[in-house]
Amino acid sequence: MKTPAQPTVEPPVGISIEGRDGEARAGTLRTPHGSVPTPTFMPVGTKGTVKGLDRGELREIGAGVVLGNTYHLYFRPGAQIVREAGGLHGFTGWDGPMLTDSGGYQVFSLAKTREIGERGVRFASVYDGSKHEFTPERATRVQEDLGADIAMVLDECPPANASREYHAASLERTARWAERCRETHGRSDQALFGIVQGGLFPDLRKRSLRLTTELDFPGYAVGGLSVGESREEMLGTLGLTAPLLPPEKPRYFMGIGDPVGILEVIGLGVDMFDCVLPTRLARHGSALTVNGRVNLRNARFRRDFGPIDEECDCRTCAGYSRAYLAHLVREDELLGHRLVTLHNVRFVTKLCEEARRHILDRDFYGWAGWWTERYTGGSAGKVEKG
Amino acid sequence: MKTPAQPTVEPPVGISIEGRDGEARAGTLRTPHGSVPTPTFMPVGTKGTVKGLDRGELREIGAGVVLGNTYHLYFRPGAQIVREAGGLHGFTGWDGPMLTDSGGYQVFSLAKTREIGERGVRFASVYDGSKHEFTPERATRVQEDLGADIAMVLDECPPANASREYHAASLERTARWAERCRETHGRSDQALFGIVQGGLFPDLRKRSLRLTTELDFPGYAVGGLSVGESREEMLGTLGLTAPLLPPEKPRYFMGIGDPVGILEVIGLGVDMFDCVLPTRLARHGSALTVNGRVNLRNARFRRDFGPIDEECDCRTCAGYSRAYLAHLVREDELLGHRLVTLHNVRFVTKLCEEARRHILDRDFYGWAGWWTERYTGGSAGKVEKG
Repeated sequence: MKTPAQPTVEPPVGISIEGRDGEARAGTLRTPHGSVPTPTFMPVGTKGTVKGLDRGELREIGAGVVLGNTYHLYFRPGAQIVREAGGLHGFTGWDGPMLTDSGGYQVFSLAKTREIGERGVRFASVYDGSKHEFTPERATRVQEDLGADIAMVLDECPPANASREYHAASLERTARWAERCRETHGRSDQALFGIVQGGLFPDLRKRSLRLTTELDFPGYAVGGLSVGESREEMLGTLGLTAPLLPPEKPRYFMGIGDPVGILEVIGLGVDMFDCVLPTRLARHGSALTVNGRVNLRNARFRRDFGPIDEECDCRTCAGYSRAYLAHLVREDELLGHRLVTLHNVRFVTKLCEEARRHILDRDFYGWAGWWTERYTGGSAGKVEKG
Repeated sequence: MKTPAQPTVEPPVGISIEGRDGEARAGTLRTPHGSVPTPTFMPVGTKGTVKGLDRGELREIGAGVVLGNTYHLYFRPGAQIVREAGGLHGFTGWDGPMLTDSGGYQVFSLAKTREIGERGVRFASVYDGSKHEFTPERATRVQEDLGADIAMVLDECPPANASREYHAASLERTARWAERCRETHGRSDQALFGIVQGGLFPDLRKRSLRLTTELDFPGYAVGGLSVGESREEMLGTLGLTAPLLPPEKPRYFMGIGDPVGILEVIGLGVDMFDCVLPTRLARHGSALTVNGRVNLRNARFRRDFGPIDEECDCRTCAGYSRAYLAHLVREDELLGHRLVTLHNVRFVTKLCEEARRHILDRDFYGWAGWWTERYTGGSAGKVEKG
């Protein structure tokens, strides 16, 4: 059995907080592959690629941490091949920070049938229906093979409408799994983050938070949200949970990528967040602008020779018109997906950079409210000071 | 009626020949959007985009002239929109030389039914079945709207197996159409090239060549080849035709993109050629190497951590392994199509650069034979000194 990490050893990933405005935090995330200003949006590279973008572009648009999905990489190309390539960094060529999820979320969301027990979860592959089992030990070892800077414990993420009883039992098991992950984890150049569950029940959230933080992980995620509940429920629960997390450690909110939601979770003290939304929208021809989302398939863009967003500093906005992008998107041309993806991801990374400045200037909430008002045309709620 | 171009006015496109080895020519093509060393492979941007590549990458891989297909652009987004955007240059953002075909090839190859007459050709759109007519006048005006540096006359390109009688009549009409195109054409910043037809019949080729060159175009294409005939028939016919073209004008061979074929047509005195092959292969996971084509879907590449081609200087080969590309291609990831396209187009532009050097060194045919032998593993014919 492995010895648990010595508390005196500096963990490979940490955060220094350089400014606060209410609950909102501006800091620097330190990882073995470089430092990242926070708050930071982490683009999702599901299968080892952020759809359509190469590493030079990721760097160019200010991507910090890039995500990989353990579930998909476990099947394709396989963790062993990634390990032989020198981990995800060697395999994909991205030399900045990376994070892998545990695979649990896909096991629970993609599998038609699955059997969950104390030992782990058995499921059928979405690729070929073959039977597999993820245990805390296996999810940890697979992520060690993938070799991202940050790995996540295997957790169960019950649906928003699961019963209180289910959530209560599940969070206890998730905590026991978290401990088994920690016991298994041995890579000193990789940090293993814990995950807080507990559904929408404040007392269960607190219980999960206590059990998870007692295990003393170098960072924590708030999981089990953005899974079907309302935005109010999500923010309410996050607002109760985030402030109770150890302030000296990075806080990761799993699954937010819309600009307004990003400002809301930043306002509640989150440092890192991820979502496929900006990349997925792009593939459907939707582009983000300071005045809201626009669908480039709309007829009015066919003769619009201006950029997607006048304020954007990305290469797409510098060099290509809405009319050209609208044409590419309508014709399902690769370049269209790629250029709109580049813009959308830059849009949210730039939003995070601006948020950081306003936190340091201690005028985050006023700015976020103004920004949200403009983005939504006044139809959304406001970002409240925590 | 417009006045024909004055012969004393310098045409907007021309070529200076700087070296010869046998029939092979090394030169510089001059256009309103810059000069291009020849021989040159012209990547095809069917709908105003070379599948997956942006303009920075086209520049980076040494693309000279980029093609657009009039047929597709006429329907999507429409010549009028392209004109409003400032032509294809303004619309696509590519500021280097461009060439448009007349649309005729697609009319003849894509349409299920078409009616050809002295006036022009009527056909149904592949997009929505609507009825359209391309006359020499219309094909010319549409290309003036698209505004490429080089436009092509509307020609009929009969199938390889059409009868001698059909070819004989067709080439006469094509010559009459060419004259009508020339009469219509009025843009002084665009060159209109003639096209030689005549099938595989040497006397008909000579007849078409005489009729076309009498119209005194600033450049000539050899058309009606690569349409189903054998490689020997193609090369035999080109070998009879190309040397009879005016030596002081650019020579364009329509439709060659495989590396061996490129060396063969260069050896017969061609300056410019185009083909969708390098980009189409890439989308099917096939990559070009100095030792021949490889299909990245092949199982042996799953653990091959070397580059596609050791000798290649492209960004794909510098930064990504066969194993990673094989994964992307198998998963049908946009980045895979894009990175392999980048490589394949660079492979052929680099081949042209090398061919040019060897023409200037007057050792082209020996080098081309050695190169072909290595590429084919000794199975192909040799490039003969013309």
